[in-house]
Amino acid sequence: MAMATHHFRPQRYYTTIGPHEPVLRIADGDSVVTTTVDSGGRDASGDQVTPGGNPQTGPFFVEGAEPGDALVVTLDQLVPNRRTGLSGTTVAPGVLDPDFVRLLPEFAIMLWDIDTATGTARPRKLDEPHDGLVDPPTPLEHLVLPLEPMVGCFGVAPARGQAISTATSGPHGGNMDYRGFAQGVTVLLPVAVPGALFHIGDGHATQGDGEIVGTGIETSFDVRFTCRVAKGVGIRWPRGEDRDYVFTVGNARPLDQAVQHATTEMLRWLEEDFRLDLRSSSTLMGQAVRYEVGNVYDPAYTMVCKMPKRLLPERPGDGRG
Amino acid sequence: MAMATHHFRPQRYYTTIGPHEPVLRIADGDSVVTTTVDSGGRDASGDQVTPGGNPQTGPFFVEGAEPGDALVVTLDQLVPNRRTGLSGTTVAPGVLDPDFVRLLPEFAIMLWDIDTATGTARPRKLDEPHDGLVDPPTPLEHLVLPLEPMVGCFGVAPARGQAISTATSGPHGGNMDYRGFAQGVTVLLPVAVPGALFHIGDGHATQGDGEIVGTGIETSFDVRFTCRVAKGVGIRWPRGEDRDYVFTVGNARPLDQAVQHATTEMLRWLEEDFRLDLRSSSTLMGQAVRYEVGNVYDPAYTMVCKMPKRLLPERPGDGRG
Amino acid sequence: MAMATHHFRPQRYYTTIGPHEPVLRIADGDSVVTTTVDSGGRDASGDQVTPGGNPQTGPFFVEGAEPGDALVVTLDQLVPNRRTGLSGTTVAPGVLDPDFVRLLPEFAIMLWDIDTATGTARPRKLDEPHDGLVDPPTPLEHLVLPLEPMVGCFGVAPARGQAISTATSGPHGGNMDYRGFAQGVTVLLPVAVPGALFHIGDGHATQGDGEIVGTGIETSFDVRFTCRVAKGVGIRWPRGEDRDYVFTVGNARPLDQAVQHATTEMLRWLEEDFRLDLRSSSTLMGQAVRYEVGNVYDPAYTMVCKMPKRLLPERPGDGRG
Amino acid sequence: MAMATHHFRPQRYYTTIGPHEPVLRIADGDSVVTTTVDSGGRDASGDQVTPGGNPQTGPFFVEGAEPGDALVVTLDQLVPNRRTGLSGTTVAPGVLDPDFVRLLPEFAIMLWDIDTATGTARPRKLDEPHDGLVDPPTPLEHLVLPLEPMVGCFGVAPARGQAISTATSGPHGGNMDYRGFAQGVTVLLPVAVPGALFHIGDGHATQGDGEIVGTGIETSFDVRFTCRVAKGVGIRWPRGEDRDYVFTVGNARPLDQAVQHATTEMLRWLEEDFRLDLRSSSTLMGQAVRYEVGNVYDPAYTMVCKMPKRLLPERPGDGRG
Repeated sequence: MAMATHHFRPQRYYTTIGPHEPVLRIADGDSVVTTTVDSGGRDASGDQVTPGGNPQTGPFFVEGAEPGDALVVTLDQLVPNRRTGLSGTTVAPGVLDPDFVRLLPEFAIMLWDIDTATGTARPRKLDEPHDGLVDPPTPLEHLVLPLEPMVGCFGVAPARGQAISTATSGPHGGNMDYRGFAQGVTVLLPVAVPGALFHIGDGHATQGDGEIVGTGIETSFDVRFTCRVAKGVGIRWPRGEDRDYVFTVGNARPLDQAVQHATTEMLRWLEEDFRLDLRSSSTLMGQAVRYEVGNVYDPAYTMVCKMPKRLLPERPGDGRG
Repeated sequence: MAMATHHFRPQRYYTTIGPHEPVLRIADGDSVVTTTVDSGGRDASGDQVTPGGNPQTGPFFVEGAEPGDALVVTLDQLVPNRRTGLSGTTVAPGVLDPDFVRLLPEFAIMLWDIDTATGTARPRKLDEPHDGLVDPPTPLEHLVLPLEPMVGCFGVAPARGQAISTATSGPHGGNMDYRGFAQGVTVLLPVAVPGALFHIGDGHATQGDGEIVGTGIETSFDVRFTCRVAKGVGIRWPRGEDRDYVFTVGNARPLDQAVQHATTEMLRWLEEDFRLDLRSSSTLMGQAVRYEVGNVYDPAYTMVCKMPKRLLPERPGDGRG
Repeated sequence: MAMATHHFRPQRYYTTIGPHEPVLRIADGDSVVTTTVDSGGRDASGDQVTPGGNPQTGPFFVEGAEPGDALVVTLDQLVPNRRTGLSGTTVAPGVLDPDFVRLLPEFAIMLWDIDTATGTARPRKLDEPHDGLVDPPTPLEHLVLPLEPMVGCFGVAPARGQAISTATSGPHGGNMDYRGFAQGVTVLLPVAVPGALFHIGDGHATQGDGEIVGTGIETSFDVRFTCRVAKGVGIRWPRGEDRDYVFTVGNARPLDQAVQHATTEMLRWLEEDFRLDLRSSSTLMGQAVRYEVGNVYDPAYTMVCKMPKRLLPERPGDGRG
Repeated sequence: MAMATHHFRPQRYYTTIGPHEPVLRIADGDSVVTTTVDSGGRDASGDQVTPGGNPQTGPFFVEGAEPGDALVVTLDQLVPNRRTGLSGTTVAPGVLDPDFVRLLPEFAIMLWDIDTATGTARPRKLDEPHDGLVDPPTPLEHLVLPLEPMVGCFGVAPARGQAISTATSGPHGGNMDYRGFAQGVTVLLPVAVPGALFHIGDGHATQGDGEIVGTGIETSFDVRFTCRVAKGVGIRWPRGEDRDYVFTVGNARPLDQAVQHATTEMLRWLEEDFRLDLRSSSTLMGQAVRYEVGNVYDPAYTMVCKMPKRLLPERPGDGRG
C-alpha cells in the first residue's frame, strides 16, 4: 500500500470537536502536512484569522475507521512557525490554596521570542505598551528555556453525536494540555464515528506540567502527522507510546478520577496487548508505574499513567505494526 | 561546632507521630545512625518486634528547634538491611474506576529477594504455602527491578499537641510514600514543638509513583540522617531538595488539594529564598514546573511540586549552608 | 399579549442537548403541552420508540430569546402517563467506599406500579422472568412510596455550538437529576443561542437524593410548561424558584466544585436581584443556607444551594413578573 | 439500674480529641449536666477562659465501654447560656469559584443577640469599634433568626492512640459542624479506647448547612447528655437518630468521599439492624434517601445520609433500648 502525503491549507477552524464536515479524506496510513493557529486564533504571520479558544485544523476523515476501532496518529513533526509566542503570568486561582488567591497579581499576558534555530524561548519586551500585556519581570529578563514543542488539543469526534468544546477534554481526547504529546509520539484515540474525524491545534513551544498559568508558550505550528486505523482495537481513553514508555490518559475532575481512568485503562492495555493478568500487571505497576500531570487548569484535568517498555513482555503483533 | 554521630538502637516504636517521650536528644548538626523496622513491624532478622502500621523509630529531640523553625533533615543513608521484602499484588480499589473494582483478584502479598550487592529486587517463590501470601505470577518470574530505597513515613510532632496516625500525612510530614525521599535528599519540616521530635520508618526498597498497590517493597532499613535547625524559617508544608530540584509537598485529598498546597508552598519559597515576586515565579513555574505523585493510596494523598534549580536565581545565604 | 398553548406530539428525540433543528417555535409567554419518553426511550404505551439515554422532546425555539438572556421555564404539569416504571436496585459503585464495591449484588432493574389516582408507587412482580429484571426483594413487597414526579434532564442549547450528551449536565442544564425539579417550580436557564432551544425529558415518578441507584422510578410523562424570556438577565448556572425558596444549581465533579458553582451563583443572584452586598449575603447565607444533592451518579454531579425567601428582602420588579 | 445525673463544672479544656486523663467517670446510663465554652474559649460570662479552637469539655470515661462497642449519647439539652454570639461575615474562599475569591470583603466577625426566651437571634450593633468586628450591614439590621441550637464538635478518643485536632473530624466524630446535632438527637460513636472518653463543645445558637462562613452563631452552652454503651455494636462512622430519621455521618474530603462513607455506613446499618439485604436497601435508598451537608469548611467535610424511619422495617431489640 503506497502511503500518500497530503498538503492541506486550512480555510476554517472549529472550537468544538465534533461531527463537522471533513476538510479532507485520507487513506489509512496517509500523512498530512498542515498548519495550526495558536490558541487565540493567530497564524504564522501573527494575524488573527479565526476566533480564539483553541481553534482546530480539520477534521480529517480517515477511510476505514469505524466505531470500535482505534485511530493511531503519529505526531511526525511539530514545529513552531513564527517567532513569537504568548503565555500567562499568574498561576490559576484553582491551583492555589483558596486563601492565597487574593495575593495574586492581575492576570496579564507576556510575549516570548521563539527561535527554532537555537531551540530556545526567551521573554520578549514589548515594543510599546498594550492593554493586558506586560513586559517580562526583571528577574526573568535573561531567562532562556529550551523549546519542547507539543500540541495541547487534538482528538476525534466523540460518541453520541456530541460536539465538545476545545476548552475541555474527554475520552475522545480534546484539550489535554499534556507536554508529553510531543514530536515522535504515537497516540491512539477511540473512534466513535465513521472516518474518526481527527482535529488538531493549540501548539505550545513548551509548557510546564499542569499548564498552571493556563497556557504554555502559545504559538502557531507547522505539523505533520500520520493516521492509521487499528481495526477492532477498542479503547476507552487515549493511549500513547514513545520510545521508552506506553501511557494512558485520563481526563476528568478531580485529578483522583483522572488517575482512576488512566490506571484502569493501563490495566486493560497490559492485559489485552501484553498478556499480563491483573495480578501481574498490578504487582508490576505497583513498583514501576509513573504518573505525569497533563493539566490542572481546564474544565477536565488530565493525568497520564506510564509504564516503561523495558519491563513489559514482548507484544504479539498488535495490528499497529 | 563539632558534630556528633549517635548510634541508636531502637527499643520501642510508635504508630503515631506526636509528642512522645524522646528516645534521644541530639544537637543541631548531629547525625544519627539507626535502624527502622518495615511497615509490618519486622526487623532486620525478619522478626516481628512491634505491631504493624508503619512503626517509627524515634522521636529524636533536636536541641534548639522551636516552633516557627524548620527542621532540616538530610537522609544520608537509606539501605535495606535484610534480604526480603513484601509488596501488595492488587491495585487499590480507590485508584480504579469504581465499576472495574469487581474484576480485581483477591488481595495478597508477594515476597521479593533484595540484593543490595547487585542493587536489585526479584520476585521470590514461597518455600511453602502461607495464608495471604502468593507466589510470583508466571509472567513476573524473571522480573528484575533496580533498588531505589526510600522512606515512606517520617515527620515531626504536629501542631496543637496532636498525635497523628502513621497511616496518614499532613503539614508535619507523615506517611507521604513519595519515592523521591531517597538517599541524599534534604527535607525541611515545620517545627511545632520544642525539639521538633523527628520520627522515621517505613522503608521501601523501591516503589512506583502513587504506591498504588498500597505498598512499595517493604523492608527494614539501616538509616543515617543529619538534623539541623533553620531558625525562623517558617514553612507550612514539607520542602525538599536534591541535586537538581527544590520541591514542596502537599498532603491532602483530593489530589487537587494536594496540588494546591504544594504549588502555593512553592510560590512562597520562591519569594522568600529566591526573591521572585509572584508574577516572576508564576511565569517561570508555568513553563518549567514538574509534579510528581507521592501516593494516591493513603488517607491523605501526596503531590510534589518541583522546580529545577538551574532555572532559579542564586539564593542569598539561607542559613542552611 | 395573548399567550398561546401549543399541543405538540413529538416525532423524534435527541440524546444530546444542542443546536438541533427546532421542532416548534413559540412566543415569549407561550405554553407547551407535550409528552416525554422515559430514559430508556419508552412511551406511554411502554413501547420503545427511540434509543435510550434520556431522549429529549424538543428543542423548542422561544422567540425573542438571545444570548445573554435567561429562559424562564415554569414546569406547570409533570404527570406520569403510564402505569409502570423502572428503577435500579444497586447503589452505584462510585457512591460507595471502594473496598465495599465487591459486596454489591449484580446490577438489575425492578418494575414499579405507578398509580396517579392514589399518588403512589409500589414494587411490581414480574409476570414472567426477564433477563436483567428482578422481582421485588421480599422485604420490599409491601412498600408504598408517594409519587413526587420530577424531570431529570432538561436544558437549553449550550454555548459555543456544543451538543452535550444527555447523560451529563453543565451550565446549560442537562441531566441534573434533582428531585426539586418538580411541578410548579420555575427554572431559569442561560440562553446561549437565538431561541434558546429548550429540551425536556427523563421523567421520574419519584427519586431519592443523589439518584444513587442510577435511576429514579423512570417513566414517560405528560408535561406542560411555559416559557418566558428575561431579557438581559445574565446568569451563569441554572436558577430556580418554588414557593418558599430561591435556589441555584451547580453541575460538576467533585461535589465540592458543584458547591462552589451553586454558592457563587447564589451570591451573584442575591446581589443582582435582592440588593444584598457580599457581606450581607454571606452573613445571611452562613446561618440560613440549605444545600440539596441533585445527583451523585452522572458524569457531572449536581448540588443545589437554597435560600428561604422569607429571609430575603423584597425584590424590585425583576422582569420575570 | 439507677441512673445518676452528674453535675460537672469544667476546669480545663482540650483542643484535641484524644486519650486525655478523664475528668469524670460515669456509669453506663448516667447523665451529665455541664457547660461548654464557645469556639473561641469564652464562657457564659463572655470571659475567655481557655485558648480558642473549639475547646472541649471532658473527656468523660463511661464505664463498661470497650473497643468494639458503640457509645450511645443522647443530647438531652443544648441551651445557649449567654446573650451574645459571634459569626463570620464572609463566605469561605474554598466554597467559592476560585476566580470569585478576590471579590470577597475582608474577613470580619459580627455580634448577635441571643434570646432564649423568644428563641431568636438578631444582629447586634457594636457598643464601640473593635478591631476585626463589624457592625451588622444595613440590609440585615432587622433580621430575626430562630434559634436552632446544636453542637459543632464532639466525639470519642480515636483509634491507635491518636489525638486529633478539634478543627477537623473523622470516624471518631470531631468537628462535624452538622446542624442536625440538635437537642433530642441520639448519636452513636465507635469506641476505640476503654471508657470511650467522650468530649463535647463548640455550641452554635444556629447554623446554616455547610457552615460556609466558618462559624455558626458561636456561643457557650448549658448541656445535658446521657451516655449508654451498646456492647459489641461495631460501627465505622458516627450514626444518629431523631424522631423521623436514622442517619450516618461521613467525614472526609472531597465531599464525594464523605458521601461514600455515609452511604456505605447506612447500607451496613440497614443490614445489621433492619435486616435489609443489599438489594433491598439499595432499592429503597435509591428512591427515599436524603443527604444533608454538615460542613464544607473544616479540613474534613461532613455529609449526612438519612433514611426515614417510617419506610424501614421494625428493628428487633437492638440492645440500645
